Amino acid sequence: MKPILCFPVLDRRILLSSLAMLPVLSASLRSTSAVAQAQRDPLPSWNEGATKASILDFVARVTTQGGPFFVPAEQRIASFDNDGTLWVEQPMYVQLAFALDRVKAMAPLHPEWKDKQPFKAVLEDDMKTLAESGERGLLELVLVTHAGMTTDEFAKIVSDWLATARHPRFKRPYTELVYQPMLELLAYLRANGFKTFIASGGGIEFMRPWTERIYGVPPDQVIGSSIKTRFEMKDGAPTLFRLPDVNFIDDKAGKPIGINEHIGRRPIAAFGNSDGDLEMLQWATLGTSGARFGLIVHHTDAEREYAYDRQSHFGKLDVALDAAAVNKWTVADMKKDWKRIFAFD
Amino acid sequence: MKPILCFPVLDRRILLSSLAMLPVLSASLRSTSAVAQAQRDPLPSWNEGATKASILDFVARVTTQGGPFFVPAEQRIASFDNDGTLWVEQPMYVQLAFALDRVKAMAPLHPEWKDKQPFKAVLEDDMKTLAESGERGLLELVLVTHAGMTTDEFAKIVSDWLATARHPRFKRPYTELVYQPMLELLAYLRANGFKTFIASGGGIEFMRPWTERIYGVPPDQVIGSSIKTRFEMKDGAPTLFRLPDVNFIDDKAGKPIGINEHIGRRPIAAFGNSDGDLEMLQWATLGTSGARFGLIVHHTDAEREYAYDRQSHFGKLDVALDAAAVNKWTVADMKKDWKRIFAFD
Repeated sequence: MKPILCFPVLDRRILLSSLAMLPVLSASLRSTSAVAQAQRDPLPSWNEGATKASILDFVARVTTQGGPFFVPAEQRIASFDNDGTLWVEQPMYVQLAFALDRVKAMAPLHPEWKDKQPFKAVLEDDMKTLAESGERGLLELVLVTHAGMTTDEFAKIVSDWLATARHPRFKRPYTELVYQPMLELLAYLRANGFKTFIASGGGIEFMRPWTERIYGVPPDQVIGSSIKTRFEMKDGAPTLFRLPDVNFIDDKAGKPIGINEHIGRRPIAAFGNSDGDLEMLQWATLGTSGARFGLIVHHTDAEREYAYDRQSHFGKLDVALDAAAVNKWTVADMKKDWKRIFAFD
Repeated sequence: MKPILCFPVLDRRILLSSLAMLPVLSASLRSTSAVAQAQRDPLPSWNEGATKASILDFVARVTTQGGPFFVPAEQRIASFDNDGTLWVEQPMYVQLAFALDRVKAMAPLHPEWKDKQPFKAVLEDDMKTLAESGERGLLELVLVTHAGMTTDEFAKIVSDWLATARHPRFKRPYTELVYQPMLELLAYLRANGFKTFIASGGGIEFMRPWTERIYGVPPDQVIGSSIKTRFEMKDGAPTLFRLPDVNFIDDKAGKPIGINEHIGRRPIAAFGNSDGDLEMLQWATLGTSGARFGLIVHHTDAEREYAYDRQSHFGKLDVALDAAAVNKWTVADMKKDWKRIFAFD
């Protein structure tokens, strides 16, 4: 630090670039600035308070070598739900909006859909009838729109759709509707040696084309629901063909199962926002003596985002909210705890 | 390098420790010695020749920035079969030896096994009758010995067994019967930015307790066959209970499916040794214009290990050997290409 402190009138950029020519001094300068960076607030979009303090405290505890709660880096596993935890899930799951758009795009090849539910309801934007088709109707829509092509083709369909689709209220690409405080949290955990995973009820192949770019989470750290695939050689080229057959539902009690299957270790921290995340939070935090961290994002901000919990159709938060109180999970109150919701705020 | 070269009579250790007191010089020395290390042979247990050259050439090509075959680090995925590729699979798969030992250990609780096949054959060491029970008999043995406990309990059973079990010929723990040249290859790929995965027909939970320690491959980078699990809260603690029900067979055409499910990216290099690896090798290397690498370990050394291929019961290598010639996969001839087989050689 000394050279800089002694010549405060020097332009810092000029100083840095001349120092850069001296490899020795620049090395020591770089480590000084790394310390300064670490001392900066790693979670600038989180307001000061108990929620933010609980995050910082947990990370400090598990990374303090020699401390009673130290966890070796390879065991620092954190799992995040996606819909409603990392990005917006209202007025409907993004993947459902995708499926509805796909039905419309595919309709010219399926003239029979004009008279066949639940497709008719989609084509007529009749959300009431669509809702009445229930889970079976939705599953039919998902299988028709998500199967019948190779994995490469599906990844391209998803990427193309995300490039043009806009959220009905925010009029922005869905990949901009990711929560800035959670992006900071992901980066902060990784900077502290955590491996960050997504464990979502959404489709694993619907997320993988963009999670690395948007969240910094590579495809092999994404867990989600899936349909079966079939391997075949086609004109000398290997392909995986997507079949209209459910393989795995990564929701509720499925989340710990999917997490075990993919990670093979219990996370020491889990982040969710709905009853679908209850078992993941239990799996990560309970029945162990070490430091563990559970956090629920509570959507309380109708003005900047949405306000919903116990009665919501998408992202219902009821038993998991009660469990949070019992199990001492942190509840992040979006309105109170988040300075900004989105990067563009 | 210069200070060392100029004073060759100095004790190198003393020189290094005095230099260490000068942070500046020691930093420059460290980078010099890093260069020296990189220039050292990264694959010392591989004999010089076409096989070793093909590995070095592939890695050089995909890591040469600006070159026509450069692959960004995040896409450098390598997948390895386990049995017969990373460790010994004769006279039977290690996991089968485990299952047979477990039957014997569990027998006192199952008096009925004395008169019930295939258990009777196991208890009487009657391998001929056991073989006659076929795949169905073996599956029954595997399910009985691998299910009926929590995932934590199973991991402990595996670790305890590996600590005491000995290979019938080499009289050593199975975890010492890993191929030294392949350990070097794993480390060499990782040093060049690769993420190394295991994709084995063996049980995913049978491998995970030890792959990080032995291969440097963490649990989340292990793919394998699995049985179903059930999540349940038990006295306030979350558990995953292992069920006697096959979930996924990660062999043959299952390998690309398992790889896609877990990694979400096609490997650019794959390493196997049997027909069970054919589709993985196809998935990694064919139908793409970039540099790709496929390698088959050919067991040709009856003296130091085993010699087997087209007629073998375990690790049969027949169509994949023919495919290697057609697809220009490298065939590593253990006898010719490997200077050492095991670390203790």
